[in-house]
Amino acid sequence: MKALVLFSGGLDSSTCLGLAVDKYGADNVLALSVYYGQKHDKEIRASEKVAAHYGVKQQTLDLAKIFEGSDCTLLKGSDGDIPKESYAKQIEESAGKPVSTYVPFRNGLFLASAASIALSNGCDVIYYGAHSDDAAGNAYPDCSENFNRAMNEAIYLGSGEQLRIEAPFVSLTKADVVRKGVELGVPFELTWSCYEGGDKPCGICGTCRDRIAAFEANGLIDPLMKGE
Amino acid sequence: MKALVLFSGGLDSSTCLGLAVDKYGADNVLALSVYYGQKHDKEIRASEKVAAHYGVKQQTLDLAKIFEGSDCTLLKGSDGDIPKESYAKQIEESAGKPVSTYVPFRNGLFLASAASIALSNGCDVIYYGAHSDDAAGNAYPDCSENFNRAMNEAIYLGSGEQLRIEAPFVSLTKADVVRKGVELGVPFELTWSCYEGGDKPCGICGTCRDRIAAFEANGLIDPLMKGE
Repeated sequence: MKALVLFSGGLDSSTCLGLAVDKYGADNVLALSVYYGQKHDKEIRASEKVAAHYGVKQQTLDLAKIFEGSDCTLLKGSDGDIPKESYAKQIEESAGKPVSTYVPFRNGLFLASAASIALSNGCDVIYYGAHSDDAAGNAYPDCSENFNRAMNEAIYLGSGEQLRIEAPFVSLTKADVVRKGVELGVPFELTWSCYEGGDKPCGICGTCRDRIAAFEANGLIDPLMKGE
Repeated sequence: MKALVLFSGGLDSSTCLGLAVDKYGADNVLALSVYYGQKHDKEIRASEKVAAHYGVKQQTLDLAKIFEGSDCTLLKGSDGDIPKESYAKQIEESAGKPVSTYVPFRNGLFLASAASIALSNGCDVIYYGAHSDDAAGNAYPDCSENFNRAMNEAIYLGSGEQLRIEAPFVSLTKADVVRKGVELGVPFELTWSCYEGGDKPCGICGTCRDRIAAFEANGLIDPLMKGE
């Protein structure tokens, strides 16, 4: 095994998986999907379909217990509603603090878990799909380039220089990620991004709005929204 | 809650807990103890006794699944024997690579888990007891000052500048930690460090040798070894 991909089943990480498979071949890629206590399991179901599409080995991990005390609105334990506003609006309202859908240090925890599992499986690189839109305005501080640089150094040093992080989209926008995914033939129709767990994406949560706009910026319609 | 202490129930982390309680008071300290698939649960039992001694709230976490694929000799899944040699000898034999008792990126994973839990509990600092002996010769690369610096930066940035790491012993030896613990009145007789799960410490594994020597350097006998 060569590369471990942090893989939620969403648009960004599916493109990241497509990139890793393109580079290393499916046999050399391990997809790691983490359940962290979301209000629904649509992402995990989507991730299984995308992993099967690519024929990669998938490992799942349940870290929900770690987030039991969190009031993040994405999580089962939270009474708060998932915001129905654009990220731009949420960022404005949160005034430089993480937004209400920030899961405390989630990416740091996922990357650290990925590091432990990657080392046990002989991988020497971890791919993950953070991009610049998510880091804007400090909304998700664990998506920023600076965070990524520090975490990469921590993993490189803490593994005895055996392992590093690759975040190929960290300076790209989500629209750039869609363009890359189209080039790679990523099966976007199998992915799931919506924060809600309906039959169809809600179309109005922050991540739906972002996703629809990213397709539109490429002159495309999100395949999950076709016929809507 | 103010400080979260990564707390194994061993000598180093018990001293670290003693330090945090001394500084912030027991009511402001949360002890986090992680089971990661060790061959025995003596440490967790010891940690419960020490936490009760200090009257701090303790949270336990089971991350054993993450290490299921590892061949680290400390873990249940490993056929390998726990080395019965001094660290100096092990370091010499491993020639700049992590030793066989290195659990892949364990401290990074523990610190990342601690970060997520700390943020949900309103803590703004994580204490952990890494010291310089463990980092020597790259035996445990996730104990080094450089690793600690990078991980601190990752946690500070990835938390939106809400949280930082304090590793008060990172430039001290284990003998220094014992001296500090004696000053603080740490109940060393309740702690457990031995890699084996016997009724008494084996006295010959790397961590037993280290611990006995650290007491001797202070002109003391390890209370767990008295009457031996």
